[in-house]
Amino acid sequence: MKKIPDASAAIIRITFSQMEQEFFRVLTQFGFTPEKAKICAQIFAENTLDGVATHGIHRFPRFIKYVKDGHINIQAEPTKQHRAGSVEQWDGQLGPGILNALVCTERAMELAQECGIGCVALRNTNHWMRGGTYAWKTAKAGFVFFGWTNTIAIMPAWGAVDCHLGNNPFVIGVPYNDEAIVLDMAMSQFSYGTMEAHKLRGAQLSVPGGYNANGKLTTDPSAILNSKRALPIGYWKGSGLALLLDIVATVLSGGLPTAEISKHEVEYALSQVFIAIDISKLGSNSAIANTVNSIVRDYKNSKTESGLQEVLYPGERVVRVRTENLKNGIPVDKIIWEGIQNL
Amino acid sequence: MKKIPDASAAIIRITFSQMEQEFFRVLTQFGFTPEKAKICAQIFAENTLDGVATHGIHRFPRFIKYVKDGHINIQAEPTKQHRAGSVEQWDGQLGPGILNALVCTERAMELAQECGIGCVALRNTNHWMRGGTYAWKTAKAGFVFFGWTNTIAIMPAWGAVDCHLGNNPFVIGVPYNDEAIVLDMAMSQFSYGTMEAHKLRGAQLSVPGGYNANGKLTTDPSAILNSKRALPIGYWKGSGLALLLDIVATVLSGGLPTAEISKHEVEYALSQVFIAIDISKLGSNSAIANTVNSIVRDYKNSKTESGLQEVLYPGERVVRVRTENLKNGIPVDKIIWEGIQNL
Repeated sequence: MKKIPDASAAIIRITFSQMEQEFFRVLTQFGFTPEKAKICAQIFAENTLDGVATHGIHRFPRFIKYVKDGHINIQAEPTKQHRAGSVEQWDGQLGPGILNALVCTERAMELAQECGIGCVALRNTNHWMRGGTYAWKTAKAGFVFFGWTNTIAIMPAWGAVDCHLGNNPFVIGVPYNDEAIVLDMAMSQFSYGTMEAHKLRGAQLSVPGGYNANGKLTTDPSAILNSKRALPIGYWKGSGLALLLDIVATVLSGGLPTAEISKHEVEYALSQVFIAIDISKLGSNSAIANTVNSIVRDYKNSKTESGLQEVLYPGERVVRVRTENLKNGIPVDKIIWEGIQNL
Repeated sequence: MKKIPDASAAIIRITFSQMEQEFFRVLTQFGFTPEKAKICAQIFAENTLDGVATHGIHRFPRFIKYVKDGHINIQAEPTKQHRAGSVEQWDGQLGPGILNALVCTERAMELAQECGIGCVALRNTNHWMRGGTYAWKTAKAGFVFFGWTNTIAIMPAWGAVDCHLGNNPFVIGVPYNDEAIVLDMAMSQFSYGTMEAHKLRGAQLSVPGGYNANGKLTTDPSAILNSKRALPIGYWKGSGLALLLDIVATVLSGGLPTAEISKHEVEYALSQVFIAIDISKLGSNSAIANTVNSIVRDYKNSKTESGLQEVLYPGERVVRVRTENLKNGIPVDKIIWEGIQNL
């Protein structure tokens, strides 16, 4: 993680298409077919464009390393194993997580068009990068989306000191005008990437993110990185939700739970769930749009704390960052960009 | 809320069937048919038996008041309005929330048996009391369950000082041996009932539960009850999840969002979602049971903080409380019990 930008790093601006092309070049060099390279390059670039560099350019070198090390099989295609009505089980065959997740997202939408709701559970897949990717895609196509993934154990249960839970990101998306409202949240208050970035900047976390060596809650990222005791959101609640999401993903997919994944030397063979609901079958587009708009309008009418201009709905900042970065280029640490160019 | 037991209150033990019979007597007296009274009495008694008196005996007098005041229509029957494959929209006709929720839970299971997954969205209903009721029921019948409800606005968005969000309880259940693992969590760190109870006992909350008048996080329940600034779990995350759950419940059901419900003088005409997945279609019962058992075993192997004997999974304490109360009677404040007897 030593390459994450610190305060003194030189930030350069890269256009979206420059970044996409550079990812494409690297991916084809490492054996991806042009078709697969194009899709993966686009998603890695979009995640970075949207301000989620931790699951974009910052993660890209590790993705390539896992390909080189054989944890990700770039030839693999996800295959349907079983269908029970509106529910399907797929096997990701340890292929690239982005490609597997996109196939299952599309399939969940097809099932939803056919059955109202579609649920695709995927086993033996790899890190899907940004969960929000799949929620933006479905929500912009007019579906409600629920999805989640399990992960390697990186969070202690509430009351525990060692890690038996993944931070199991949970994602919800709903259509909102031409965009979407997308919640993409891990069960830990902060990701390890965020804590590393704060540490490198010498910054404290905005709220307590875990425990120090003495078992006290702290906003010091270094203390939490050392203790490996990240805090579940809402204490016992996020701990319980992480456990349940792991159980359901494992049961529905027939795949591996966090406990088994954590026996691997690195994180692979994950279990994921993709649920789409075709809301066009439940009301007119305009009535539904009016409903969502009226809820957001009321929410935005919240009286804010002093010093704060407005409350943001989930995904609102993403659209602003995307717009800004499309106009001015995506800010990237020069050293990280050179690292990609040297791959 | 002044009748919640304080430290000096006399606690008596009431058997489950005594309590059920007393609720039944009151309900029939207020015009419920014997059939409906029996179901409601059972659920109110079960919630109390399971240690959730806030949604059992403590809430029963308010339920009766809403019946008397005409907010709950005891003659109403929920009706199916629309079906789109595995998704149905129902109208609760402002009937008793428990009865509506049970009908929709049963219907979600029927749809799941037919289609693998069933989603029932319910509008114009009333408080379902304990969300866990419906998760226990489905999970013990072999289904995975997801459900949630919106509520009147009782929580500020992250960054806001006035209430535009419900605490929108979200519930997940999975089968576990002859019992279930059930997560039943509101989006606020503590319910108002819990904060009231702490205040009456003169106790501090175990973790910060909201803001005081100066906008500082506090564990003082009185300060939060005064400021009306309950804290969302995980700060911005629980705030976002509360918003999304409201939007999805409203869109799927075609019912009212929190913003509209909050225009009423009391809480009625809620929107809810009930999703069941028939996991018997996805693998053998024994294989699924082994999977869940192995996950729970790993979870329970967590190394605990000093002073803590074990980590509990969601619902584990409920089973212990239920067993203890079935054996020794349900502990109830004498004044509250007399209040029920005088209804």
